[in-house]
Amino acid sequence: MKQLTVDLGERSYPIYIGEGIISGLAATLANHKIGTKSPILVVTDENVAKFYLAQVKDSLEAGGYRVATAVVAPGEKSKSLAVLEDMITVALEAGLDRSSAVIAIGGGVVGDLAGFVAASYMRGIRFVQIPTTILAHDSSVGGKVAVNHRLAKNVIGAFHQPEFVLYDTATLKTLPEREIRAGLSELVKEGFIWDREFVEWFDANTDKLLALDSEALAHALYIGCGVKATVVSQDEREGGLRAILNLGHTIGHALEAVSGYDELLHGEAIAIGMVGAAMLSEKLGNPGSIAVETERILRKLGLPVRIPSHLDTDAIMSALMHDKKFKEGTMVFIIPTAIGEVEINSNVSSVWVREIVERLKGEA
Amino acid sequence: MKQLTVDLGERSYPIYIGEGIISGLAATLANHKIGTKSPILVVTDENVAKFYLAQVKDSLEAGGYRVATAVVAPGEKSKSLAVLEDMITVALEAGLDRSSAVIAIGGGVVGDLAGFVAASYMRGIRFVQIPTTILAHDSSVGGKVAVNHRLAKNVIGAFHQPEFVLYDTATLKTLPEREIRAGLSELVKEGFIWDREFVEWFDANTDKLLALDSEALAHALYIGCGVKATVVSQDEREGGLRAILNLGHTIGHALEAVSGYDELLHGEAIAIGMVGAAMLSEKLGNPGSIAVETERILRKLGLPVRIPSHLDTDAIMSALMHDKKFKEGTMVFIIPTAIGEVEINSNVSSVWVREIVERLKGEA
Repeated sequence: MKQLTVDLGERSYPIYIGEGIISGLAATLANHKIGTKSPILVVTDENVAKFYLAQVKDSLEAGGYRVATAVVAPGEKSKSLAVLEDMITVALEAGLDRSSAVIAIGGGVVGDLAGFVAASYMRGIRFVQIPTTILAHDSSVGGKVAVNHRLAKNVIGAFHQPEFVLYDTATLKTLPEREIRAGLSELVKEGFIWDREFVEWFDANTDKLLALDSEALAHALYIGCGVKATVVSQDEREGGLRAILNLGHTIGHALEAVSGYDELLHGEAIAIGMVGAAMLSEKLGNPGSIAVETERILRKLGLPVRIPSHLDTDAIMSALMHDKKFKEGTMVFIIPTAIGEVEINSNVSSVWVREIVERLKGEA
Repeated sequence: MKQLTVDLGERSYPIYIGEGIISGLAATLANHKIGTKSPILVVTDENVAKFYLAQVKDSLEAGGYRVATAVVAPGEKSKSLAVLEDMITVALEAGLDRSSAVIAIGGGVVGDLAGFVAASYMRGIRFVQIPTTILAHDSSVGGKVAVNHRLAKNVIGAFHQPEFVLYDTATLKTLPEREIRAGLSELVKEGFIWDREFVEWFDANTDKLLALDSEALAHALYIGCGVKATVVSQDEREGGLRAILNLGHTIGHALEAVSGYDELLHGEAIAIGMVGAAMLSEKLGNPGSIAVETERILRKLGLPVRIPSHLDTDAIMSALMHDKKFKEGTMVFIIPTAIGEVEINSNVSSVWVREIVERLKGEA
């Protein structure tokens, strides 16, 4: 088992990564002083519940825990205040108190929702994350939890750090191939912003990763979570540096919004966004090789690198202007300045952005 | 103008108390580095809006601020996730960003609701409180913000400290007399838990307070907020000491729940609860004079000191057992051990509590 620490002072917590470690959950809770006196709420979605809910519930009960469960529909629609209210109902009816904990088993949706339940129930109880997707490595580091509003994603939330994260690589083997590729997109992004060596390792180990080799996955998650943990440790509340984690997300979010959140997976949208950011980098005077290399590696992972041609450029530009990262009207992009290095550039011309959007809609 | 500081390290903030100081709001915002670039959301209720909303909006706009307003219905029903969602809609449509602030003008309901809007919008933006009731002195110190769930009050919320609190004693003069008395109940409670001298001053100045004498009110709010600030500073996240602020609240909350939240004002319910706690104190071996003195002063303030006889004892006991302060099944009461001193007693027998509830239902 690998272990790394997200260093946030008194809110520091460990991430455990290994194959089959979910079976030791009850013991890990006990190690983290989450006792058996107060009930625990396990939140998951229908897809994940099929594989793991009975097993987790049984092993927790065998460890002496009283367990309430809440199973939500898969997908972004469950990140709503209405579902949050349902979760609070379950928590109240099960008698959760301030010594209780909420355990999220699932991808980013479940983590974000259950995390906000934990953040807001009785003004904050303890939280444990068990990510079951590669993409969720991202939401499992940093404490950002939220639900959506019909006008904007993730706009109602909190910063609420977990007690620990338990990443069982065995749970990743039930993922559909398209989700695996999309998850790897967010993972290789940690390399593009911070760690050239990790990008090179990714390039050399693409086949193993796509085949879900346990050792390769554990290494990739360890390094990827480590990059994110390093960045978050330096900027817990998103004052500045943390923005670099959004490489590819500015265009990516706009594509998700314009395509209605059901055409592109998040990881696919940001793959296209990373290529766009690399193209903007060239316009800003950096070497063209950054865009070439970014695109080559993302293609190798089987990810889309062009905007679906039916998406309207004006609609994309309009969505871009509403992105909350355009603070006070200024246009900010995370720009790669080399493979493994980025800068926060707040002077990117919207004319250039439109040009790149058009170029991304061209032939692949 | 009086000023005191709630000392919470980097989350410390001042409380300004004085007559007419609301007219200086724009300047005070500027002093606290809340700039004019990002829009501000002012939240209030229909009753308060009539008196102050136009004035505040005009003076903020004169100071260069863009102001969005949200006016909610008065009363606890506005502390709901549905109203929270409406507030977030207003905030998004007005273009509030991470540099924006939410200003609450009103009583505890408005403060709790607007505070949770500020705590959760984009995972937390700045918050300013302008309490317009005496009771709201309580919710304006300590950062506890929340909305209700149909099964429990204040169960969905956060700890979110304001940038500053501005207490304009002139705004208290439009309060109905019954609310004045109920507000003074929570204020004299700060004396009962911590400051005998303040109780004596209260006893000597009842007439001035009930006549809303500005100087007397400013003094009482200054001392009352000061007691609460001292307690909160030592226990921001409610680990232990902060529980003493709940003197009278255990029985008080049960009475509010059983009477359907519309018969007794909060301050009235806790007045009865303080007498009950003092009676329990005598059963625990403390002098009977504590209950006599507590009851005398609360009567002098025109507050109820007996449980309405139509409320059912079993229902009250059942509500008491569900109070979240009964952590892990143990019965905890805040017990006065002298006038101006309390202890957290976790071994109060429910048989005694039932006896006291019955006694409180007797002749006044």
